[in-house]
Amino acid sequence: MRVHQLERPLVRSLVQAVSRGTAELDDDAVARIFATATWSVLVEPGDGVAGLLLESIGADRALSMLIEGRPPGDWLAASVDAGSPVELGLADVAAACERWRPRLSSRLVVAALRAAVQCRAGFVTPGDAAWPDALEVLGAHAPIGLWVRGSVGALDHPGGAIAIVGSRDATNYGEHVAMDLASGLSDRGFAVVSGAAYGIDGMAHRACLASRGTTVAFLAGGVDRLYPAAHHDLLLRAAVSGAVVSELPCGSSPTKWRFLQRNRLIAAASHATVVVEAGQRSGSLNTAGHAAALGRPLGAVPGPVTSVTSAGCHRLLREFDAVCVTSVADVVEMVLGSPDARPVGASTTSGAAPGATATGRAGERRSADGPDTTRVLDALSSRSPRGVADLARRTGMAPRAVAVTLGTLALDGGAYENENGWLRM
Amino acid sequence: MRVHQLERPLVRSLVQAVSRGTAELDDDAVARIFATATWSVLVEPGDGVAGLLLESIGADRALSMLIEGRPPGDWLAASVDAGSPVELGLADVAAACERWRPRLSSRLVVAALRAAVQCRAGFVTPGDAAWPDALEVLGAHAPIGLWVRGSVGALDHPGGAIAIVGSRDATNYGEHVAMDLASGLSDRGFAVVSGAAYGIDGMAHRACLASRGTTVAFLAGGVDRLYPAAHHDLLLRAAVSGAVVSELPCGSSPTKWRFLQRNRLIAAASHATVVVEAGQRSGSLNTAGHAAALGRPLGAVPGPVTSVTSAGCHRLLREFDAVCVTSVADVVEMVLGSPDARPVGASTTSGAAPGATATGRAGERRSADGPDTTRVLDALSSRSPRGVADLARRTGMAPRAVAVTLGTLALDGGAYENENGWLRM
Repeated sequence: MRVHQLERPLVRSLVQAVSRGTAELDDDAVARIFATATWSVLVEPGDGVAGLLLESIGADRALSMLIEGRPPGDWLAASVDAGSPVELGLADVAAACERWRPRLSSRLVVAALRAAVQCRAGFVTPGDAAWPDALEVLGAHAPIGLWVRGSVGALDHPGGAIAIVGSRDATNYGEHVAMDLASGLSDRGFAVVSGAAYGIDGMAHRACLASRGTTVAFLAGGVDRLYPAAHHDLLLRAAVSGAVVSELPCGSSPTKWRFLQRNRLIAAASHATVVVEAGQRSGSLNTAGHAAALGRPLGAVPGPVTSVTSAGCHRLLREFDAVCVTSVADVVEMVLGSPDARPVGASTTSGAAPGATATGRAGERRSADGPDTTRVLDALSSRSPRGVADLARRTGMAPRAVAVTLGTLALDGGAYENENGWLRM
Repeated sequence: MRVHQLERPLVRSLVQAVSRGTAELDDDAVARIFATATWSVLVEPGDGVAGLLLESIGADRALSMLIEGRPPGDWLAASVDAGSPVELGLADVAAACERWRPRLSSRLVVAALRAAVQCRAGFVTPGDAAWPDALEVLGAHAPIGLWVRGSVGALDHPGGAIAIVGSRDATNYGEHVAMDLASGLSDRGFAVVSGAAYGIDGMAHRACLASRGTTVAFLAGGVDRLYPAAHHDLLLRAAVSGAVVSELPCGSSPTKWRFLQRNRLIAAASHATVVVEAGQRSGSLNTAGHAAALGRPLGAVPGPVTSVTSAGCHRLLREFDAVCVTSVADVVEMVLGSPDARPVGASTTSGAAPGATATGRAGERRSADGPDTTRVLDALSSRSPRGVADLARRTGMAPRAVAVTLGTLALDGGAYENENGWLRM
């Protein structure tokens, strides 16, 4: 990849637009922001190797090295030169470069920036004043940058933020409780964070907006595609006073893997997470697992033991030591009353660890089979055959890793190959 | 008090009848059992001073000393002689003798024994093979003896025992869950322990019986008075395969104080306690407090946060670290899975400690005023004026303590005196 001479004014104007500052950026700033945006296109969420290398040697230099095809030893040497040697093996770096390279194209980055400008999304990077410090708890798994529609200030709300999440198949009871909690917490000055899904998430955003509060929606795809479609208007309204956020560049579609990774952002960006209603397989249990692993207070709303949509909440109370919350006051007490009392887990959240813990026994079977399988299945279609190179780009994985995973899937009956490529079973 | 020569054959035949053995008792055994039954008449449940002294010097000798009016120093010396000196001050012993003496009458004891024989109740004492070892956890506050209708073997059920308790004002939901748990636990060989009250307790006994299980009902009054009256037939059925038990002698009426003390027996006699539904002021929270203080596993069944009858259960989950139980399997796991993981509280349960903790903020106001106030209020009538001596007998308190408490109550507006005695306001 190379930014051609002709493209430079275009890149400058796009970067200037997404960086949202009024002052004109200097060349270094443009290069840095463009490189960071490029990394946001190259890697899948939660890529710890990218996190470590970019933190150590900078997005700009790392991008040059990737373009130049430098061997793993050079990367490690660069991190020593930079004064912060990374703890990675040569094989880790080699595997990472292999999975990043298939997406290395300035066309993709320019398209992402263009789409961002079109929907008026900003791009916030760790150096910026608006960057939410709460995400630092993710360590090497923190996002490379955030694409934001609406107010970047909502990301670091002065009153604090609380995640309210739960089942898509919510009951009237669950929606009623979500509404009470979201409006009550908004009234007390908290921002309400959620995932924009049907059911509990949607009700949390809606009730917060009805109370004239600040709500933040984290999406699993690009912020130019407001998903789910039925929440398009709701998300537009969220972006007026609050924000709609994603670590994925515009144009990205949501995948199972990205939903699971998006959940870590909801948990990390919030002072506490409350699960209102959740079946045994609800994705909100994954968010809860992240909150617990990050040492953030985790609350669960109980319900009738005869209701399947409360079974996940009860499991959080039993197995994750979640706090039983029944009212706004309970949530406030959980947030303000000695959060240090909760044992703090690992300071980094790998994609698999807390997710696997939270959904391990009850999660969908495919997610229990490991992250690579999930990602390849996400990228496979049951109608259009796809080749390994195509799948490598779509998944952000190395072609060889894709091939290995396809082999396993073929044995398990999850995928098959015809003359034109691979298909989902 | 003196057992007159004329009464001896009567006493022997009564004691022989309640001791339920087929072999004829020797004179020492008769004297010991009669003395223990006398102590069961003299003291109110949970009297730790009686517990310590009887353990040290024996019921028989202690009764002689009380009859002889021996000074406190003699009691302490006797405990040293017996090789197990009690840790009590002279003032403790003096105060105890003062509160025991008002009820010292062989007539009362003979009446209690006669009533027991009439309803075929047995009297079990700590020395007996049928004595439930689980009660030893109560230490000095263990009952002096147990009056049992039905099978004494039910007290120490080989499959283990689980208490299922809850609100008298149960909802259909609560009764449904109580029924499921009680029948499921019966099917798995556990005895179901409860307190015979309306609502959850009654449903627990009933469902256990319907599953042909063993159920044990602890009463707050004598077992000759099956209380509440609407559960008369249910309790008769419980006594066929299981047992109806009280530490109070026949003829005793249930009082608030005795209900609270009875709850410690439910908690201590059971391997675990499960609260199914409980309002903020439910007596079952007191049972739960005892279970927690005794280090026994404590479970609470969640319900809708919109239901007032689940508020107490949610409080147990929040504040008492109760386990969230939603099914029979959850209860079994709680009982069989590392009970040692739960921090064990004080090994003795004073009347006030766990009760006050569990009902402290939410309990009825009068119980928060201290045990003496509760007991005197229990004994006062709003229609029949009563004198201090009468109240001392009824409460099992020293006349001076009764007078002091009446004075406080008069100031607080809880009681008043007319020319014939004291009345409840």
